[in-house]
Amino acid sequence: MNNTFGTLFSVTTFGESHGPALGVVIDGVPAGLTLDIPFIQSELDRRKPGQSSLTTARKESDTVEVLSGVFDGRTTGTPLAMLLRNADQHSSDYSNVAETFRPGHADFTFDKKYGFRDYRGGGRSSGRETAARVAAGAVAKLLLAASGITVRACASQIGNVHAEEYDWSFVEQNPVRTADRARAEAMAGEIRAAAGRGDSVGGAVYGEILGVPAGLGEPVFDKMDALLAHAMFSIGGVKGFELGEGFGVCTLHGSENNDPITPEGFASNHAGGILGGISNGGTVTFRLAVKPTPSIALPQKTVTNGGEARELVIRGRHDPCLVPRIVPVAEAMAALVTADLLLRARSSRL
Amino acid sequence: MNNTFGTLFSVTTFGESHGPALGVVIDGVPAGLTLDIPFIQSELDRRKPGQSSLTTARKESDTVEVLSGVFDGRTTGTPLAMLLRNADQHSSDYSNVAETFRPGHADFTFDKKYGFRDYRGGGRSSGRETAARVAAGAVAKLLLAASGITVRACASQIGNVHAEEYDWSFVEQNPVRTADRARAEAMAGEIRAAAGRGDSVGGAVYGEILGVPAGLGEPVFDKMDALLAHAMFSIGGVKGFELGEGFGVCTLHGSENNDPITPEGFASNHAGGILGGISNGGTVTFRLAVKPTPSIALPQKTVTNGGEARELVIRGRHDPCLVPRIVPVAEAMAALVTADLLLRARSSRL
Amino acid sequence: MNNTFGTLFSVTTFGESHGPALGVVIDGVPAGLTLDIPFIQSELDRRKPGQSSLTTARKESDTVEVLSGVFDGRTTGTPLAMLLRNADQHSSDYSNVAETFRPGHADFTFDKKYGFRDYRGGGRSSGRETAARVAAGAVAKLLLAASGITVRACASQIGNVHAEEYDWSFVEQNPVRTADRARAEAMAGEIRAAAGRGDSVGGAVYGEILGVPAGLGEPVFDKMDALLAHAMFSIGGVKGFELGEGFGVCTLHGSENNDPITPEGFASNHAGGILGGISNGGTVTFRLAVKPTPSIALPQKTVTNGGEARELVIRGRHDPCLVPRIVPVAEAMAALVTADLLLRARSSRL
Amino acid sequence: MNNTFGTLFSVTTFGESHGPALGVVIDGVPAGLTLDIPFIQSELDRRKPGQSSLTTARKESDTVEVLSGVFDGRTTGTPLAMLLRNADQHSSDYSNVAETFRPGHADFTFDKKYGFRDYRGGGRSSGRETAARVAAGAVAKLLLAASGITVRACASQIGNVHAEEYDWSFVEQNPVRTADRARAEAMAGEIRAAAGRGDSVGGAVYGEILGVPAGLGEPVFDKMDALLAHAMFSIGGVKGFELGEGFGVCTLHGSENNDPITPEGFASNHAGGILGGISNGGTVTFRLAVKPTPSIALPQKTVTNGGEARELVIRGRHDPCLVPRIVPVAEAMAALVTADLLLRARSSRL
Repeated sequence: MNNTFGTLFSVTTFGESHGPALGVVIDGVPAGLTLDIPFIQSELDRRKPGQSSLTTARKESDTVEVLSGVFDGRTTGTPLAMLLRNADQHSSDYSNVAETFRPGHADFTFDKKYGFRDYRGGGRSSGRETAARVAAGAVAKLLLAASGITVRACASQIGNVHAEEYDWSFVEQNPVRTADRARAEAMAGEIRAAAGRGDSVGGAVYGEILGVPAGLGEPVFDKMDALLAHAMFSIGGVKGFELGEGFGVCTLHGSENNDPITPEGFASNHAGGILGGISNGGTVTFRLAVKPTPSIALPQKTVTNGGEARELVIRGRHDPCLVPRIVPVAEAMAALVTADLLLRARSSRL
Repeated sequence: MNNTFGTLFSVTTFGESHGPALGVVIDGVPAGLTLDIPFIQSELDRRKPGQSSLTTARKESDTVEVLSGVFDGRTTGTPLAMLLRNADQHSSDYSNVAETFRPGHADFTFDKKYGFRDYRGGGRSSGRETAARVAAGAVAKLLLAASGITVRACASQIGNVHAEEYDWSFVEQNPVRTADRARAEAMAGEIRAAAGRGDSVGGAVYGEILGVPAGLGEPVFDKMDALLAHAMFSIGGVKGFELGEGFGVCTLHGSENNDPITPEGFASNHAGGILGGISNGGTVTFRLAVKPTPSIALPQKTVTNGGEARELVIRGRHDPCLVPRIVPVAEAMAALVTADLLLRARSSRL
Repeated sequence: MNNTFGTLFSVTTFGESHGPALGVVIDGVPAGLTLDIPFIQSELDRRKPGQSSLTTARKESDTVEVLSGVFDGRTTGTPLAMLLRNADQHSSDYSNVAETFRPGHADFTFDKKYGFRDYRGGGRSSGRETAARVAAGAVAKLLLAASGITVRACASQIGNVHAEEYDWSFVEQNPVRTADRARAEAMAGEIRAAAGRGDSVGGAVYGEILGVPAGLGEPVFDKMDALLAHAMFSIGGVKGFELGEGFGVCTLHGSENNDPITPEGFASNHAGGILGGISNGGTVTFRLAVKPTPSIALPQKTVTNGGEARELVIRGRHDPCLVPRIVPVAEAMAALVTADLLLRARSSRL
Repeated sequence: MNNTFGTLFSVTTFGESHGPALGVVIDGVPAGLTLDIPFIQSELDRRKPGQSSLTTARKESDTVEVLSGVFDGRTTGTPLAMLLRNADQHSSDYSNVAETFRPGHADFTFDKKYGFRDYRGGGRSSGRETAARVAAGAVAKLLLAASGITVRACASQIGNVHAEEYDWSFVEQNPVRTADRARAEAMAGEIRAAAGRGDSVGGAVYGEILGVPAGLGEPVFDKMDALLAHAMFSIGGVKGFELGEGFGVCTLHGSENNDPITPEGFASNHAGGILGGISNGGTVTFRLAVKPTPSIALPQKTVTNGGEARELVIRGRHDPCLVPRIVPVAEAMAALVTADLLLRARSSRL
């Protein structure tokens, strides 16, 4: 089940960047959920390319078609399939990478794994594959909303600029998707500076899951944080994941890091809302490290399929920073994990 | 399948800290593997308590008994079960935590999830549970060794002291399990200082998987790094996971972070041996953040099961730093992930 | 994973009878398989309605569209998705069953399970759902063919007429899909007689898997015969499954039923090609009992959603016997089981 | 997951006939279930050998030890592991089958699959493996009892003698485990006659699941009847499975086989309590065909591991009919399926 994620709210995606379509099948949506298709579309619109000067100019309409699992506006309990047709692609753009491995990409590893690859736009390894996850994540968000749970994320770092203040209402008002009004322009500047040199830049995403009831997550292997780590690392370009205090714990003492418990609740949230793998009723907080886009205009050393040295210049326009568009994907993955655990928790007691 | 990890090399653990026994069933060990039981025992001995002045004085013999799946010294292809009896425990030590939630522990969340809990030594949430994983990991290591793959890990940070040099032969010669001869004493000093105050300290583990052939890992959800992140975050106390450059990528540019490909191989390893979720033939490198032990001798604010405020002083002796004993657990989990992907890769081509 | 079948060759279907489309995602097709789309279409054509005077006159073009997982004519190792658009349906035909449970159908149970149902044509419980399986089964057959394995099935009983001679070349030449030239007309007569009365009739399907190497199947729960039983019983209308001698064993003695082993192989095949759940290298033989179509023109007693008594007359045209069209579905399911076990067997030895 | 059965109430068994122990891990037992260990033991006692003159004289105490998942007499929500030590075995009894394949047994197929086999008593393919299932099934029965569901089975046919009357109170009072007082002696006679000739005889088991609420089972692949078929066929020696009318449907018409629905419920139960794969609130009824024991005292033709012809005489004492001891195993498997679906049904609606 290489392309499936989740146990009870189970998502299977398919599709390549330049094939006929992308899609997703969600198995396990409980019957009776009102399916708000405009909301699903709006989530896809947040992810799609061409939204601003900071993202690639590639155009994708990404219009979702619901194929099954809905009747009279409500989910029926049967698989919910959604389809996203790919627009006409110029596969010829990729002729120079058909025989050459792009550094930092999966070209080399797909070839080693499968013996050959669909080289058009990265095929299955394209970031475009995440559109299917965003569609599924939107359904998960609808399910969570019915239980008072919400997910949100933003750009918390671009290059050397860190967000320090969080105004969540600002996130969708700026192309970086930061929550820090004061530093949004500096962050955008980091991206433009890299792009101007034909280069790219990395950054970080910060996310929160609010309203999570205590008791979600399984004690040993399927801890809530372990599933979140899995989910986030399944997004291309993610190289680090932290929960709560994250790597900050390395220099802390127990007396500092333990969250005191009071009759009113936890007095702090170093834990990031999860203890022993199970949600404690507080806000789940996490952070991702996102690598700089591997597709850059600068010449790079590489080899051909046959192992001969080449200097590669990647044509076409690519996002100079992945962070703004990963924000909705991270939300989607967090929503999928939480929806799945919410259903799994229904079996924890007699 | 809350207590199972892995798809083809599939590990199910059971057992509580103060119950009769811990154990593990490995389903999917290929037939014909010579089972080196002394090696399995030696791995368990690396994890067991009471190894040095830096770890808890609790005694556990942790002698492994193989219950099934072996005949004439070789695996038969049927489930391999291993049992670890718990020594006689002093459950009375835990009488004061029966009714009180320990900060930083899973007591609160188990109660919320299940309605009550086995409070003796943390029950299923005890670090003791990892003994079963180490036994399974040892079998995975034997399977990997047959393919030339090895796993190793060490303490790379204790509090404010970072390892800077790696002499892997040194790891099992010092109680911190660092690979840095020059800084081992400073690291031990951080632990002793915390312990002396009745406190604990955090740190980091660095790990490597060597000899991994290119082509392991599944492209989308079951990326090799996603499974490693899942695996490592399933270890209690882990709050962060990085692959390769990790959070360092946030400030890098594509021209810096991309690993050039040459006819001789990759010219650098910022990627940590994985591209697009699939191993690239290089060394897989990762790092974990480990929180300070939540059980400390200092008084802490908490509440009872009934919600009344209490000041809690935890009795008994606990590891003042989890890092040294997490090292073999991290190795075990890395081995489980790699063994599973090695078998899964057998189906990737016609 | 309610709508997924298979572990390594894993099939997820979606779609309702009168929704926009049916489809299937196959995850785990090894890379490098030449995808013969005309063959897939020809298998779908065998299942589609309107093939003869013995089947329903409903028209479905059932033209398959491959959405992903193929490049330059070969499978890539990524999910293979296939779509079957539903033709324009006359949902109004079902207005009288929207509020009334059809006897012998899943109307009542869907309502109890989900609280409501997509009543148009049975929704997800329609036999139309099996089209997606046939498409997936065709891919499995292509994979099996590469290993010299073939699957075939035929009608072995219609009402009181039993097939006694097997000429496999005849199966696709008669609308009953029997292999018995001499009894084909009598079988068709049973169907026509029932249909003439506004009634329906049951029957049996006999199937064979040829060329199965010894060693497929897992010893305990995932025995090859157990998976076949699961697969066949997942087809609507199947009420019995037998392997080899089947219910005939009840009256046999061990000395009769045991297949002697000779240096040339097994001297008989009472076992049906499977011993201890694992294929023995002989032909796997099985038989299904298929109930008479529940949709009949005769008036039937039933109740409304609200529990009031009604006499129901089902309008529209339905197959008076399910057997001829279940034949390709049974083949598809047998192929799915065998393909999955073929891949799983790759991990059974070191 | 070759040795695991079930999705949410998930059972993993391990152990060989002549290894140190058999065991089972149940993952997914909801917290709070009172664990009646004497009941579990009593179920094991029903399955164990040496109960009567009709079964093998092999002695096994089969005393269950609960290793985990229970605290203060109630399940904790963590894995419930149970261990059954094997008594001292006389492995030397099997020296003549070490090199020779027993007809009708899995010896040949294990060798082909794994390259060698644990030949002592059949190893993993021994019927002794079912003891672990019976222990797990007893826990499932306890869970079901809390929802008013019960499972029962009996011998319905031995050789040519069929049960015609069902007095369930009689089942545990006769060594055949039939419910037919009038034919119990005739059935026993069939067994004794076969045994007297050094032969064995087949038969059938009839089972019922009572009190099943409407709505259990998943519509497509995991139909309740498909899971029952899988479960029953996973028992060694089962060659046929029927639900409700079973193979009788082949000669029925729709007007006969459809169960009319009335305001008071279904007017008949040809369906066997399941429609479209989902329970309809009626009694689930099923029947198994059980082959004659393959181990017989009569000389049989076979070959050695090396392919040389041999005449084999199997030493030791074996059950001349498997039916009486399969009865509790069939109940256990039915209970496992039902318990799993009961938990899965918790997620079917919002």
